[in-house]
Amino acid sequence: MFATINEDVFRSYVFWSSILVLKMLVMSVLTGMQRFRKKAFVNPEDIATMPKLKLKTDDPDVERVRRAHLNDLENILPFFVIGFFYMLTNPDAFIASTIFRAVAVARIAHTLVYAVVVIPQPARAIAWMVPYVASIYMATKTILHFW
Amino acid sequence: MFATINEDVFRSYVFWSSILVLKMLVMSVLTGMQRFRKKAFVNPEDIATMPKLKLKTDDPDVERVRRAHLNDLENILPFFVIGFFYMLTNPDAFIASTIFRAVAVARIAHTLVYAVVVIPQPARAIAWMVPYVASIYMATKTILHFW
Amino acid sequence: MFATINEDVFRSYVFWSSILVLKMLVMSVLTGMQRFRKKAFVNPEDIATMPKLKLKTDDPDVERVRRAHLNDLENILPFFVIGFFYMLTNPDAFIASTIFRAVAVARIAHTLVYAVVVIPQPARAIAWMVPYVASIYMATKTILHFW
Repeated sequence: MFATINEDVFRSYVFWSSILVLKMLVMSVLTGMQRFRKKAFVNPEDIATMPKLKLKTDDPDVERVRRAHLNDLENILPFFVIGFFYMLTNPDAFIASTIFRAVAVARIAHTLVYAVVVIPQPARAIAWMVPYVASIYMATKTILHFW
Repeated sequence: MFATINEDVFRSYVFWSSILVLKMLVMSVLTGMQRFRKKAFVNPEDIATMPKLKLKTDDPDVERVRRAHLNDLENILPFFVIGFFYMLTNPDAFIASTIFRAVAVARIAHTLVYAVVVIPQPARAIAWMVPYVASIYMATKTILHFW
Repeated sequence: MFATINEDVFRSYVFWSSILVLKMLVMSVLTGMQRFRKKAFVNPEDIATMPKLKLKTDDPDVERVRRAHLNDLENILPFFVIGFFYMLTNPDAFIASTIFRAVAVARIAHTLVYAVVVIPQPARAIAWMVPYVASIYMATKTILHFW
């Protein structure tokens, strides 16, 4: 069943998905940087050596990065799954590779305009929409193929 | 190692998993609908063109959909992984296909009774329990097989 | 393309990943236990039969388990993906198996020191760092391989 996967498409999928894994992991560093910068820690054991500090669970800059990270979980993780299934539907190699690249580039842009330098809307809406529509398309195509 | 996967079981896995990917993606639309209906936005840039609005992070209807979505991440995403591994343990084809279908139907029901029309308990508890027990079963079977 | 995966490495990947799926599923039980112990429920329908109770969304013990669970989603789910890709780069069998085992053991330790018995830092920082660095390593190796 995996024999039908085009080699070039598969390499594109693995490459761009790995880029997105790396991008997601960077979110933890961004969160940590904001926590230290704003001194916004949420666990008592994290400030045990800094008795003057109080816990802070609602810092807007920290929460912004957290929302961007959660949005990654909601969108990138399903993409890993549906991107893999989509390759089993014997898609056009150029279209499939282009989708994978577009999803990766858009999700990187999403992080940049949401959690690094805030850009006015509709920047984030567009960066979110591209992978979203792509995932809907791949899911629909897969469902129809495996009906 | 993948050669042992039964073709019918695999098709069932891909089909129902794709249905669940689509179902998860719908959560973003549900969240957006509640945000616009209740005017509950959490980012300053999202209300830049609506100066009368204030940020609102604790709307109960929005938070309900968010909890349903997070519950999807906690339960459906691990299912994608353990469902795939489980197929490598040479399971009975009927049992495996039935599990995949039951998980998908139950998770759709979970969303309906949690985030669309609130149904009294134990509706949500049951809808949550079926995929949960199924995942524990598949994980246990896989661990014993690959010991 | 999957033919290059070493059988022993693959078995190690499936085994330890299944252990981690099981570990993640246990988080729901831990959350439920804290909710009942602290009577901290967040949905009106969950306390419909207990009229004296009020909703409670900010119990520190419940939120601690929730944070540990979310940290699992952020770190273990990407590991499932990047661990699979990494096996396609023809890694040394001993190194790969050791990484998978180390990730699993460290993530179990992370849950224990974060959400079961709180241990002073840097216990949680170290338990978090091992899988994090391992995932960065596997992602980098995969990206360079599929460039």
